Amino acid sequence: MRLRIDLAYDGTDFSGWAKQPDLPTIQGTFEDALATVTRAPEVNTIVAGRTDAGVHAIGQVVHVDLEFGEAPAVLTGRLNSFLANSGIVIHSVIEAPAGFDARFSPLFRRYEYRISDESAPRDPRNARYTHWIDDVLDFDAMNAAANSVIGLHDWTTYCRPRPGSTSVRELQRFDWVRDTDGSLVATIQGDAFCHNMVRNLVGMSVAVGRGRLAASDAVTLRDQRLRTAAFIVLPPHGLTLVEVGYPSAEEMGARAVLTRDRRPVV
Amino acid sequence: MRLRIDLAYDGTDFSGWAKQPDLPTIQGTFEDALATVTRAPEVNTIVAGRTDAGVHAIGQVVHVDLEFGEAPAVLTGRLNSFLANSGIVIHSVIEAPAGFDARFSPLFRRYEYRISDESAPRDPRNARYTHWIDDVLDFDAMNAAANSVIGLHDWTTYCRPRPGSTSVRELQRFDWVRDTDGSLVATIQGDAFCHNMVRNLVGMSVAVGRGRLAASDAVTLRDQRLRTAAFIVLPPHGLTLVEVGYPSAEEMGARAVLTRDRRPVV
Repeated sequence: MRLRIDLAYDGTDFSGWAKQPDLPTIQGTFEDALATVTRAPEVNTIVAGRTDAGVHAIGQVVHVDLEFGEAPAVLTGRLNSFLANSGIVIHSVIEAPAGFDARFSPLFRRYEYRISDESAPRDPRNARYTHWIDDVLDFDAMNAAANSVIGLHDWTTYCRPRPGSTSVRELQRFDWVRDTDGSLVATIQGDAFCHNMVRNLVGMSVAVGRGRLAASDAVTLRDQRLRTAAFIVLPPHGLTLVEVGYPSAEEMGARAVLTRDRRPVV
Repeated sequence: MRLRIDLAYDGTDFSGWAKQPDLPTIQGTFEDALATVTRAPEVNTIVAGRTDAGVHAIGQVVHVDLEFGEAPAVLTGRLNSFLANSGIVIHSVIEAPAGFDARFSPLFRRYEYRISDESAPRDPRNARYTHWIDDVLDFDAMNAAANSVIGLHDWTTYCRPRPGSTSVRELQRFDWVRDTDGSLVATIQGDAFCHNMVRNLVGMSVAVGRGRLAASDAVTLRDQRLRTAAFIVLPPHGLTLVEVGYPSAEEMGARAVLTRDRRPVV
């Protein structure tokens, strides 16, 4: 049986999603819990978004194939009991629709990046998931730059390159809003992202917000398709994976085949 | 010179505001920082709200009398540098208006209490300052109960008694809203609060929200002026001191004298 598991985590105390020997990882902690509560000898999860060390998720999705004799929903409570105070919370466990693949089926991934600048009093309660900047940022310029770059493009300027892998992605949405607590919150949505792309895009935004770049530089730099020192990658703790969008059950199988064929597996 | 200092903290890793030997406290950490950056031999702060262990603040206020030869505002940055990653953030340092007393001048103190129930997906990023309840709470009943109890009353039912001290307080505001992240957030404002009063008031709300008490029991129990087992005090980590309201500079001195005369010093 293939299970779809929706989960959330505070990434602060983990060395990222992916299992590593002798380091606390979300995948390692979660797979141990799942093996224990299902009595499976081994579980190997496939994840929608392999988050880096320090990155959080409130809408992460994994699939896993295993034998389990009861209704999958009972696993939600059992996993949450096992994972109490671990920083990981399970939202739901269901039997996945036919053809579901957590990694290859998504239509989109949506992230948020949270910044607190000096235009609002700083709230220490959000320090674990908000990047604090000692400056007043130009919100309108950041939004203009963000809106200007969306679309299907080669994102080499904004990616850490990986050999044999394309940097072409569709950036579907990128905007900033000011939250009720005064934080600046970017929403960044795309079909997929290459490595460090989101944290470079918000890094560009901050360079614009500080007045070090013009809003129009966002597109100019993108179209140069060259790594640049004009902005810096922002730290991981401001970043959260918010939602992974999947097609309806009927269209599921076709989508995974399409994605797998189009992109090299990295 | 008397300074007014506005500050905020994540109370998770502290044993409350008040100094204690060999325990990490907000007062102890803050006074060490202030003594260092001002080179004062000793500093003794007076605080608006003596928060318990685990309670947070985003609008705490203290005053302190000390000799300092520069403009007080320069202390904000110096204190924040010294307190980086401590969980404490300084919002401002100013010379206090004549007659200002952080403890005795306030017109009101406003707190919030955050609860995440099962009607919204749980967000692990807010675990440090949100009380999670495994139940779906009746929001309307909680609000009806909260609204019903406000006013100038004897709060013995909702207080941990202290010898020689009155339990009469003016509860000015008490309501619940659902925040954008799905959390239930109580706003509780009063001229002052007796010990554990806020955490008992929200405990009563949760008993109503679970259907274990009727909304009308809130007033019935209050007017019995007896300690009760009908609800429990909620844990400290959901509680945050949001704002302390002071009179205008002209009315400041009169207010402190009035408060000091009316309430026994505890």
